[in-house]
Formats: sequence, C-alpha cells, structure tokens
Amino acid sequence: MELTDKVKYGKLLDLYSGLLTEKQRYTLEGYLLYDLSLSEMAQTQNLTRQAVFDTIQKTLKLLNEYENKMGLLRRANEITLLLESLSVTNTESAQIIEKIKNLL
Amino acid sequence: MELTDKVKYGKLLDLYSGLLTEKQRYTLEGYLLYDLSLSEMAQTQNLTRQAVFDTIQKTLKLLNEYENKMGLLRRANEITLLLESLSVTNTESAQIIEKIKNLL
Repeated sequence: MELTDKVKYGKLLDLYSGLLTEKQRYTLEGYLLYDLSLSEMAQTQNLTRQAVFDTIQKTLKLLNEYENKMGLLRRANEITLLLESLSVTNTESAQIIEKIKNLL
Repeated sequence: MELTDKVKYGKLLDLYSGLLTEKQRYTLEGYLLYDLSLSEMAQTQNLTRQAVFDTIQKTLKLLNEYENKMGLLRRANEITLLLESLSVTNTESAQIIEKIKNLL
C-alpha cells in the first residue's frame, strides 16, 4: 500500500473505529500504524497469514463503505481548509484552531 | 417526547442518517421533522400504528448506540463552543465560522 493510502486509511480508521469490531480495529492498527508484517500479526493472534490478510482487506473495504455513507473524512478536510482560511490575530485564537483541528 | 429531545434526536438523525435504512430514516423524519402522527405515517406507509411505533423506538435506540460508539454530536458541540470562543475581527472570518458550524 502506498504511503498516501496508509495515511488516508489511518484517518478513516480513526474516524470510524467505533463502528469496527475489536478484531478489525486491532488488526488494521497493527498493519497501518505499527507496520507489522502479516506473519507477525498471524503469530500474535494465532491465525494464518491468509486470515489476517482477509481481515485487513475486509476492514479496508468497510472503511470505504462507511466513508461513502457518512463522508466524515471529506467533511473534516473541508473544515480544515476553512479553518486555515480564517485570519486570526492572536495566539489564543490560533491555539483554539489547532484544538479544533485535533478534534476533526 | 420533549422538545429538547426532539432537537437532540433531530441532530443525531442528521449525523447518522447514512447508517440507517431508508425506512428508518423516512419514519424518523416524519416523526421528528414533520411532526406526523403515528396514524398518518401508518396510512402513508400502509403499516399498522404499532409497526410505525416500533420502527421509531428501534431507530431512536440505534441513534443512541451510534452516538455512544462514535460521539459525533458530542464532538460537534465541543467544536461549536470552541468556534464561538474565537475572537474574529472581520466579517469574512465570521462567515467562515458560520460555514463551519453548518458542516458540523
């Protein structure tokens, strides 16, 4: 997977993790955030490499489906652009804007 | 249902409508946004009043479950408060803030 895709799916995982099962979340975190290999994950979870691979593929597909239905990433990107177009004149406001970005 | 609850569920419906079936969305919109009675909705959808009532109850429960899992309304409220605490000095920025609020 390309790095830009990893970043995109990392964001989708963050936004939709509440809708995934623990197993789906755990496996995709290993793959996307900790760069674990299929063999490593298979060993830790006592599964075959194929089973881990299937879970990853299924979960990526699920994340795309959720994004198609809800568009949270699209909306977060839109809001980030709008926040960046605000002209703020003091440090306090700049900090508030950073806080909001972290909530998106 | 109290008005404050109607407002709350109206927001939840807006945030999570992508995760509902068409029937759930349609029925809850009738109830929350158009203030239709059970009888009116039963007639339009060719269902019993009990069936409409059940769909409403089930969908309200589902919305609460999604909010517990994802917290989109809680986060939107948090962001709205932060936006309102920004000190903006020009009309353009004030308009951008309104735009962001409408996206939440």
